[in-house]
Amino acid sequence: MAVHFRQVAIVGVGLIGGSLGLVLRREHLADSVVGIGRRIENLQAAVKLGAIDRYVSDPHEGIRDADLVVLATPVESYERHLKHWGTSVKSGAIVTDVGSVKGTLVEEVERLLPEGARFVGAHPIAGKEKSGVSAGSADLFRGARCILTPTQRTDSEALQMIRELWEAAGSIVISLDPFLHDRVLGAVSHLPHVLAFSLINALAEIRERTISELDLLGYSGGGLRDTTRIAASSPEMWRDIFIRNRDNLLVMVEVYERQLQQLKQLIRAGDGPGIEKELERARQVREQLNR
Amino acid sequence: MAVHFRQVAIVGVGLIGGSLGLVLRREHLADSVVGIGRRIENLQAAVKLGAIDRYVSDPHEGIRDADLVVLATPVESYERHLKHWGTSVKSGAIVTDVGSVKGTLVEEVERLLPEGARFVGAHPIAGKEKSGVSAGSADLFRGARCILTPTQRTDSEALQMIRELWEAAGSIVISLDPFLHDRVLGAVSHLPHVLAFSLINALAEIRERTISELDLLGYSGGGLRDTTRIAASSPEMWRDIFIRNRDNLLVMVEVYERQLQQLKQLIRAGDGPGIEKELERARQVREQLNR
Repeated sequence: MAVHFRQVAIVGVGLIGGSLGLVLRREHLADSVVGIGRRIENLQAAVKLGAIDRYVSDPHEGIRDADLVVLATPVESYERHLKHWGTSVKSGAIVTDVGSVKGTLVEEVERLLPEGARFVGAHPIAGKEKSGVSAGSADLFRGARCILTPTQRTDSEALQMIRELWEAAGSIVISLDPFLHDRVLGAVSHLPHVLAFSLINALAEIRERTISELDLLGYSGGGLRDTTRIAASSPEMWRDIFIRNRDNLLVMVEVYERQLQQLKQLIRAGDGPGIEKELERARQVREQLNR
Repeated sequence: MAVHFRQVAIVGVGLIGGSLGLVLRREHLADSVVGIGRRIENLQAAVKLGAIDRYVSDPHEGIRDADLVVLATPVESYERHLKHWGTSVKSGAIVTDVGSVKGTLVEEVERLLPEGARFVGAHPIAGKEKSGVSAGSADLFRGARCILTPTQRTDSEALQMIRELWEAAGSIVISLDPFLHDRVLGAVSHLPHVLAFSLINALAEIRERTISELDLLGYSGGGLRDTTRIAASSPEMWRDIFIRNRDNLLVMVEVYERQLQQLKQLIRAGDGPGIEKELERARQVREQLNR
């Protein structure tokens, strides 16, 4: 028998929240999926798209009967949300999230929730350069990893149910310590996002100041498009991730700056063998990603 | 009547040279395509794949009867090649290239070629993370831009023939001043490659020094794969591009470093609105690439 919930409340019906709603409804994992959010037009669209059954304007109304509450808003808003409706979470209900940062955030959520609520941190590694429920899909999580970040306080039955939920979505579920999660994702996801946003802003500056003829679209091959795809991601979401994972990220940006500095010096010196050695090293590491 | 050559000599039968050979033979644009290169096994593979009709071990033998010579080797080797067999180029023959850098290189090639040889610089903006003739395809250039870089010395009939050759390959052909070419491509292609190589080397360092558990493949979504695809490109080719376009590239890397520095400071300060503004600016520019 697959995991099943009576009422699921999704707080933040965007790309990820909406896609999870589509999964819950398609796979019949819930009797009812209620949407909670700020923008009525968005919630109406979510109903139309089949991501939620209905929405409520008062969060308490959706939360108090839910046996599963999914937090799918930018991570820095968790505290505000939990302070607003946390007391309405019923005893025994599972609260989970889909945030890209864990670490201290998991501790905060555990502290803010009432006694009896069971929190399980989750991070489906799926996204798109498009945001919003209209970009959502019940297949968004298929074949993607989903990282669960249990702590000593995590209820094992709740953990198992969230695992089954993501497996039903087609994901490969992994467990990781919340702090290790942030270091790993800082490296493979948050750092590349910082760099992609900076690259695009650098290209805009180069275009403004030095090459007015610079037609980014016309002269670039697929390379630039691929390299910067992630720079079209939600500014609101990434703002929060960068702030929340700041300590890891700053260290990693500095490692990167030193690598860039080194390659720059080799180029400045016209050191062919030195450059080739750096590029060959990168090529070999990069090929591991194609395995 | 489409453009047609009696004998085409391709010097350097790799991904680009080999793919052009496949186009020439499939579209019947040449009576005969001769390959010239260092590695016999590679030339034998090129014959087997249909990229060339035959190969010669003595370059002079392939060059002297060619009415089109295609230079498809790393750009820093052009001088060595032209000094070796340049005198064998027959009067009236067209010499072209496929190099990713133009500028002074075009002037050098024009100077090194004998009187009567007609040079047309060309840069098909097509590539892959794989190199070598076995990764080639007659469809590699389809829908891709090809930039021609004529100078005052360029013969207009030769320019027209090279234009028709690339149009026959399915490319969208554009003309650009050789120096402007290097500034534009420096921005949209060479700079992103420098950054992608540096990112991969930074991730390798982070893995070595701080997160031995860092499984780049396991925890990254499609984002990292896309962002760093170009870091698997040929080290030999990119070494030469970086050195040859050094002056433009160093200026652009510095613009980038300042942008990164700025975003880093905002993150360090935890300046939410400031970060969001930077990311929103990037997102808007990036969306132009999807048009």
